[in-house]
Amino acid sequence: MFCAIVSGEAPAIRVYEDDDYLALLDIRPIVRGHTLVVPKRHTVDLTDTPASTLADMVRIGQRIGRAARASELAADGNNIAINDGKAAFQSVFHIHLHVAPRKTGDKLSFAKGLVLRRDPDRETTGRILREALERLPD
Amino acid sequence: MFCAIVSGEAPAIRVYEDDDYLALLDIRPIVRGHTLVVPKRHTVDLTDTPASTLADMVRIGQRIGRAARASELAADGNNIAINDGKAAFQSVFHIHLHVAPRKTGDKLSFAKGLVLRRDPDRETTGRILREALERLPD
Repeated sequence: MFCAIVSGEAPAIRVYEDDDYLALLDIRPIVRGHTLVVPKRHTVDLTDTPASTLADMVRIGQRIGRAARASELAADGNNIAINDGKAAFQSVFHIHLHVAPRKTGDKLSFAKGLVLRRDPDRETTGRILREALERLPD
Repeated sequence: MFCAIVSGEAPAIRVYEDDDYLALLDIRPIVRGHTLVVPKRHTVDLTDTPASTLADMVRIGQRIGRAARASELAADGNNIAINDGKAAFQSVFHIHLHVAPRKTGDKLSFAKGLVLRRDPDRETTGRILREALERLPD
């Protein structure tokens, strides 16, 4: 699924992209701005993903989390998560890191969040995060 | 709290330690082997923690997750998480990365897991993870 997005065969709202990584809005967001950081080179989980790739993923996730705080989304924090294996709720077997921007009082429990939601304005959400990333200091 | 553990003033079951990082069992585990990776240098969250520190934390977390799979804990996967900010359930304001080993069919929902649990044999759990880390290939 992510390989098809990387190759351009499947659509996605892209938040960030470089030669090796892609960050896109989750199509089933648990909160507005829920983003997935995906390495373009396909690996499955923590057992086969190089440590350097994980390090890059978390660095990109940090920047997205900081951008979510600085943006119109006005996040007060973020949940960063990697689900390693089906036993840990992994549902797409191409490793990815979740960034879920949170707001004080949003009352989301992370498991309730597994109930699927739709963002009514995905295009705007994607633009907000892209622009906030561009404005973010290094 | 983590600073007191790093300095040795407060007790903890240590799973891994080097000059800059400490990994210890969570005193309120959501699953057996629930481990926290903590940088010894105190920072709060994603807004003030260096990207290189986050990269190291996730590298150590990956090794612990792989050790949990390889160990007697027989994990089938792991949830890796950083809670960035009170809005995202952060409760100790010294950044830390959670590694929660998961087993197929453990039926844990990550939010139910916020209900506190006790490991009846913390010392053994710590030993199992330390030994599995030592056996793990680089």
